[in-house]
Formats: sequence, structure tokens, C-alpha cells
Amino acid sequence: MKRPYFKTSSDAPAPLTFTVQRIVRFEEVDPLGIVWHGRYPSYFEDARVALGDHYGIGYLDFHRENLVTPIKQIHVDYDRPLRFGETCTITALLYWTRAARMNLGFEIRNKTGDITTTGYSVQLFLDTQGTLLMAPPDFYLDFCERWEQGLL
Amino acid sequence: MKRPYFKTSSDAPAPLTFTVQRIVRFEEVDPLGIVWHGRYPSYFEDARVALGDHYGIGYLDFHRENLVTPIKQIHVDYDRPLRFGETCTITALLYWTRAARMNLGFEIRNKTGDITTTGYSVQLFLDTQGTLLMAPPDFYLDFCERWEQGLL
Amino acid sequence: MKRPYFKTSSDAPAPLTFTVQRIVRFEEVDPLGIVWHGRYPSYFEDARVALGDHYGIGYLDFHRENLVTPIKQIHVDYDRPLRFGETCTITALLYWTRAARMNLGFEIRNKTGDITTTGYSVQLFLDTQGTLLMAPPDFYLDFCERWEQGLL
Amino acid sequence: MKRPYFKTSSDAPAPLTFTVQRIVRFEEVDPLGIVWHGRYPSYFEDARVALGDHYGIGYLDFHRENLVTPIKQIHVDYDRPLRFGETCTITALLYWTRAARMNLGFEIRNKTGDITTTGYSVQLFLDTQGTLLMAPPDFYLDFCERWEQGLL
Repeated sequence: MKRPYFKTSSDAPAPLTFTVQRIVRFEEVDPLGIVWHGRYPSYFEDARVALGDHYGIGYLDFHRENLVTPIKQIHVDYDRPLRFGETCTITALLYWTRAARMNLGFEIRNKTGDITTTGYSVQLFLDTQGTLLMAPPDFYLDFCERWEQGLL
Repeated sequence: MKRPYFKTSSDAPAPLTFTVQRIVRFEEVDPLGIVWHGRYPSYFEDARVALGDHYGIGYLDFHRENLVTPIKQIHVDYDRPLRFGETCTITALLYWTRAARMNLGFEIRNKTGDITTTGYSVQLFLDTQGTLLMAPPDFYLDFCERWEQGLL
Repeated sequence: MKRPYFKTSSDAPAPLTFTVQRIVRFEEVDPLGIVWHGRYPSYFEDARVALGDHYGIGYLDFHRENLVTPIKQIHVDYDRPLRFGETCTITALLYWTRAARMNLGFEIRNKTGDITTTGYSVQLFLDTQGTLLMAPPDFYLDFCERWEQGLL
Repeated sequence: MKRPYFKTSSDAPAPLTFTVQRIVRFEEVDPLGIVWHGRYPSYFEDARVALGDHYGIGYLDFHRENLVTPIKQIHVDYDRPLRFGETCTITALLYWTRAARMNLGFEIRNKTGDITTTGYSVQLFLDTQGTLLMAPPDFYLDFCERWEQGLL
């Protein structure tokens, strides 16, 4: 798996990014003294949810349109551990695509700025009958247009 | 907090019990090498769900009646730790009451039969409008009658 | 279970308190749309850890003295639900005692200031051989003295 | 991401497999009524731990050799949801390699035998000083030899 995880053409708009902070909880740390590997989807989700809320394309925005955006794929690469009490930043990067999906990359950095963890998630668009949308919904296309025009 | 947690009159039917097994997961163990204290509501729930399914008074049975049984109170007493890979048994004890509530006690034992953890939960009956039921629903009263008559 | 959970004599120092914020995560919410009851020990711990860090009596402070402070008892009373995305405050209250234990109460409030959840935890002092301390360790007695003299 | 996730030469020993069962807990299900996507590393770990225990290459076997096997990479593909109370099977497949790593694939199937989720994990070998091993440790090479000779 090479990074960046998603390739975009050279004339595509740059990824939209959003960064949140998180402090490692005692309960998240395993007997080896490091955050258990299976907690990282939760870390990624913190940044994904915050990015979605910030740009109006979050869980509740899709819910209002009777749509859900289930995770189709998730991937995590572990570079450095995180320990109890550490503050880290989690950055979500939404990559440009015209396809009916949301491609997000993630970067977690520790207090000294080193990358500890990276990864990605792929989400699809589904209506409430569970039917897969073959094109993004209108409100999401509006969002993409503003993104392309540099208005975000 | 004295045990037993629930007092019943001497002529009340004995508690109904159900026991399940669980093996401690790596992710449940904290940096001190023992199951993190906050995981025990999950352990109790394993036995509560299994008892409910066994006696036809589980989550889905109430759901069918358009009722939910939210937890009103939970309590845990920690006597001994559990460690990674340990097999334990979790016993739920449903205590007799005519009130509109479910009073459950819990006992967790390790492989050698020692009690590691005890506790209780109290659940109420709510309809889908969120209104508290002042008496148990009919299907639950039927269940109580069979319990009282020793038919369970 | 009557509240306040811990009774202190009228001339005891007032509880020390510390409040933190938390936003409900999607993963914490159950099929009924509310925070699953078993997540609240984690909510309480956020405030307990922050209070401990603030007053120099946290996990790492005890660790430095080769001591641990295992949870002996935990209790939760559920008054109102919390939902996805809600911001709540969690207040920990450390109650005065001369006994070899830490008695903490907890109050969670939603955005409108209503109490949603209360509870308590009891912790004991243990050395690294697992022996129970019958009196608080010296550094904790120092802390208590400053507390009693109103110096905190 | 194409499946199978790991390519092995045609004369390599077939993957070793181990299958466990798991029943979906209420707490694992999200507001959409399906297992939250971030729980699946826990599902995979159930099968990985069981396979390791079965073949003598588990967490405690490495621990005895003063080694740990941290997760370097994890990947999950979501095909179908799982719901509360569903019983599923989780199969771990250990793929043959002479490199200093453990390559595991995973398949989760629902009651009717349909694949709901697949994925993989990559683990490295580390000594207690945190130094990466460039070749598998002796006891693991012994295990590989028995595997290659069809003795497992």
C-alpha cells in the first residue's frame, strides 16, 4: 500500500482537510502500554465527523436527505505507538472524486509532530431502501461545485 | 452496599438464574494487566441478554410489544481482577418483584470458582413515546405468574 | 441509593471538583439512539483523570510512588439520555475522608444544564505487591493537609 | 484492493486456518442498527488469537520468547452488515511467507454462510528493546518447518 492512498489528477482541487485533537484514554491502552491497534478507526472517525460537520456533509446532513454513507473499506498503517495521556492531532483529508463515493485519508501526529498512524476510508451513498446511488446526491454535487470553484 | 443487593420476602419465588461464559480479550485488559473496570457492564449484559432470551423477556421480546427496558441504575463491586485469556462465568439472577421494574444481580467467577465481581442493574418499562409504565406489561405479568407457579 | 452518595461531617472540607467536556461519539450510541449505559464509566473516568492530574493525585502520581488505586466500587444512576453529537459536562467531586480510600462522586449535565447521569466510584490504595494500604500514603496525606487548610 | 490479499507462490504450503464464532452484542450495534465499522478489528482479533493459541504462535508464546508481534497494517472490506444477536463465524488464514512477518487474512460469514466482511493484518516481530527482527525467531522457524512438511 503506497501513500498517498488516493491518486487524483493534477488539475483536481486540493484535498479538504480538518484537524482535531484527542488525548489518549487509560482504557484505550493495552497491556503493552500502547493504544490497542483496533481503536484507530475511532480516532479516524473523530476527524471524519468533524470535517463532515464543518463542510455540511456530515452524518446528520445526509440523514436529512434520507441517505446514509456506510463505510465500504478502511485501512490503517501503524508507524509509531501512542501512550496514555498523550495528546495527538488527527487530520482528515477529503480527496476529490466525481465518483459516487467519499475517499478520505487520515494522518495522526504526536505532540512532537511525528506521524504515528495513517490510513484511509471509503464511503458509499445509500438511500433508506438500501439502494446504492450511482451518482452523488444533489446537495453533495453542490458542495463539490463550491469546492471546485475554490469557494470552501 | 450490602449483598444480596435485593431483598425479597421469604415467600417470594427464588431468583431465576442464567450463566454464560466469556474469555477475556486482549483489548479489554489495561496497562496494569487486568480487565479495565469499565468493561464489566458489558460482562453483566452478556448474562442479562442470555437470561432474557431464555425466558422470553429479552430486548426483542419487549421490542415486539413496542416497549423498551432502559437501565435506570447499575452497580459493580470489584473483588478480584480478571486477566487476558481467562475464562470466567457470568451469572445473572432475576429477583422477584411485583413492581414495574426488573431487578437483576450478577456474579462473575473465575476458573477456580472464586467470585471476582458482583453487581446489579435496575431496569424500568417504557413505551415508545417514552412514558414510564406504572405496572408491568401483560406479557411480563404472564411470565411472572408462570414463575410464581414454578412453571419456568 | 440516596444522593449525595457520600456523607461527610459538617466541619469537613468541601469536595474538590473538576469539570471536563465531552462530545458523544456515533460509536457510543446504541440502536435506541442513546448512549449505551455501559459507556458511562468511561465518561466518569474522563473527569476523575482530569481531577487527579489537576491536583497531583493522578494515575501517574501514584505510579511514581509505586502505588496503584484500583476501583473497588462503581455506581451509575441514569436520569436522562445523551444522544449523538451532544456536548455534555462531566464533574468529578472528591469527597473528604481520612480513610485509606478515594471517594468520588460524578455529575453529567447536558447542554441545557440538566443532570443526565450521576454516580460514584470508590478507590483503594495498593502497593506493587498488591498489598492494601491501611492508611493513605505520605504524598496523599500532604495533599489532604493542603486541602484541609484551604490551600488548593 | 484485490482479494486474496496475499499472493503466495504455487508451491507454497496452503494457508493455515482457524474459525471461531461470535454473537453480535447490543453495544456493538450503532444507531443504524448494524455493527459499527470500527468493531471489526476486534472480530478479526478473536480469530487471530485463537489461531495463534492453536498453533503455539500466540501472544503468550511470543511473550515467553521476550518478543511482541505488533500490528503494522490492518485492512477491512465491508460487504454486508451484521445485526444484534446474529451469530457469525470468523476465519483467520495465516499465509505462508519466509519474511519476518505474519500475514493473516480474515473472512466473516453470517448464519446463511454469506461473506459479510473480509480483511487482513500484517504483524512484525519486535524484541523487548523495540528492535525489529529481520528474520523470524527460531521457535517460529520451527513452526514454519512443521507447516511446510505438512505436520500441523
